[in-house]
Amino acid sequence: MRKFNFSAGPAALPEPVLYQAQQELLDWHGLGCSVMEISHRTAEFIAVAERAEQDLRDLLSIPESYKVLFLQGGATAQFAAVPWNLFGSGAKKADYIHSGHWAAKAIKEARRYGEVTVVASSEDRNFRYAPAKDCWQQSAEAAYLHYTPNETIGGVEFDYVPEVDCPLVADMSSSILSRPIPVDKFGVIYAGAQKNMGPSGIAVAIVREDLLHRAMAGIPRGLSWKVAADAGSMDNTPPTFAWYLSGLVFQWLKAQGGVEAMARLADKKSALLYEFLDRSEFFSSPVEKESRSRMNVPFVLADERLHKPFLEAAGEAGLLGLKGHRSVGGMRASLYNAVPLEAVVALVAFLSDFEARRG
Amino acid sequence: MRKFNFSAGPAALPEPVLYQAQQELLDWHGLGCSVMEISHRTAEFIAVAERAEQDLRDLLSIPESYKVLFLQGGATAQFAAVPWNLFGSGAKKADYIHSGHWAAKAIKEARRYGEVTVVASSEDRNFRYAPAKDCWQQSAEAAYLHYTPNETIGGVEFDYVPEVDCPLVADMSSSILSRPIPVDKFGVIYAGAQKNMGPSGIAVAIVREDLLHRAMAGIPRGLSWKVAADAGSMDNTPPTFAWYLSGLVFQWLKAQGGVEAMARLADKKSALLYEFLDRSEFFSSPVEKESRSRMNVPFVLADERLHKPFLEAAGEAGLLGLKGHRSVGGMRASLYNAVPLEAVVALVAFLSDFEARRG
Repeated sequence: MRKFNFSAGPAALPEPVLYQAQQELLDWHGLGCSVMEISHRTAEFIAVAERAEQDLRDLLSIPESYKVLFLQGGATAQFAAVPWNLFGSGAKKADYIHSGHWAAKAIKEARRYGEVTVVASSEDRNFRYAPAKDCWQQSAEAAYLHYTPNETIGGVEFDYVPEVDCPLVADMSSSILSRPIPVDKFGVIYAGAQKNMGPSGIAVAIVREDLLHRAMAGIPRGLSWKVAADAGSMDNTPPTFAWYLSGLVFQWLKAQGGVEAMARLADKKSALLYEFLDRSEFFSSPVEKESRSRMNVPFVLADERLHKPFLEAAGEAGLLGLKGHRSVGGMRASLYNAVPLEAVVALVAFLSDFEARRG
Repeated sequence: MRKFNFSAGPAALPEPVLYQAQQELLDWHGLGCSVMEISHRTAEFIAVAERAEQDLRDLLSIPESYKVLFLQGGATAQFAAVPWNLFGSGAKKADYIHSGHWAAKAIKEARRYGEVTVVASSEDRNFRYAPAKDCWQQSAEAAYLHYTPNETIGGVEFDYVPEVDCPLVADMSSSILSRPIPVDKFGVIYAGAQKNMGPSGIAVAIVREDLLHRAMAGIPRGLSWKVAADAGSMDNTPPTFAWYLSGLVFQWLKAQGGVEAMARLADKKSALLYEFLDRSEFFSSPVEKESRSRMNVPFVLADERLHKPFLEAAGEAGLLGLKGHRSVGGMRASLYNAVPLEAVVALVAFLSDFEARRG
């Protein structure tokens, strides 16, 4: 029996997608083998790959002037790929907005290759908010500005897109496909799949074509966006099953009404949970109101000794993946696209009941 | 209906493995969700990962002094990882044996980071054999010697392990787990999973511990064996489903009798096919007898105009994946562990029949 799954990632996938994958796992489209048992060079797999790309382009209205790349190594590999691909011409300087755990990792990796200026940071209040739009200035000679529109661990989401003269680079791992985005304001968008797109093991990079020619000498072949773009993301064997499954998720998203429908649903789900947390005297959100994520909702219990009983009771109630990240503790409910409204209704009912019994 | 699948990779997986994955795809071990929908930090997934590693250690008798890493980016990422991880101390020189398509790719990537000496090559006879054991000399100051024990495209396999004073590095992508190997003769063994281990999207590196401390400055985090070793291959989110599925393949291999049984089966399967090819007046093997691969068997038709009808007839006979690599043309039957003896019997019967009708 399927339970409600609030895992931050690898996260819940749409049940119809898993069901279809299950049905065709041993014999895909009557081919006599699994989709994961055929060469990526076959006409059959190329059709899977091309449809996935086109569906993603449709969902996010990606302009023709952007390449869509399917890559390995997760967003973490992109922390290195961003400076390697963009520092080749110029002063090897970049601006970063520091908004928490994942921004810190991106900054740390970029500092190994050039000069990073942290132009804005929310460290002063322990990363409980997103730095405001007009509180900072772009550096001279910055090759790009990098930010993290949604911090998966902190549960902080930007409600604006930074306006800069240099290419804007965003790690959109935990919020991609949860709302329409103005792709043309970005130079590069990248995201690991395992939250809103598919299983772990595949990542997407959406790269404006003019940025494909700025790589540093010595860039490892596997990090090069140019190599990936020229090869249709098949310079070497791609993670075919993860690509196929992401494609099924894209199809499912289109059938649900696309990212507009996902945005409405995300608003509804997160509002329901935050309203409860704000009413509660036992549970609370540590994030400042105007920066609260619609995707990842960390929350704390008034009594930390109840963490273990809480997780046990949640498990018994059929609610999975509520343990917070090991770096911050507490609890967290991730409300990605594949988490239905009923799951959040059930969660709020459980929280309310737990509070009444133990609070 | 499942057909016989001779794909060179992504390749056939054991049917019982796919069947188990199918049964538990939506609800793994009664957890209420798929194994691909849980965090890699959960006790449940860590148990999956640890068992996979232990089973691989058992299968290959990997000594304690070696780390077993599960990585992304395929063997191609390791073409860069090898020099990045081993050129840090010393003269940035390495020896490579050039045995065909994949060796060439490894050499090309390594040359971007240091001085590569091709100590032996089979280019003189178009890579139709493996350079002999005693025909070459190790260079002074070589940080390592790299070779490709089995060339997937050329269908050439080494029948010996080179003896060198420096660390021996092997791209074992298409032959790992097909026979026992003396791991202690190697410094590093690496392999993409999609031939003899699992689906594409995961690779294994087996690294002697003393080699974890030789990386060049600036190594991208995702290429660092040291980072991966210190983090139990979970520095960032690993490809969990591919790891799980590879683990099921390892369990299946143990149940089949391990690599000794696989070696006997590979000998039997490949002998059956080569014997037919040598008897045939229409089909032939382009590879010199003493270097013929037990895993990948390229073969040519006396009349190239029959390629298309051949592949069509093979498809109708339920034989998949026989088209040769785009770089060399012709045909190729890959006989990895998951390809049963009956598949080869059926293939030989088909070839014989085709020759009688069209030869």
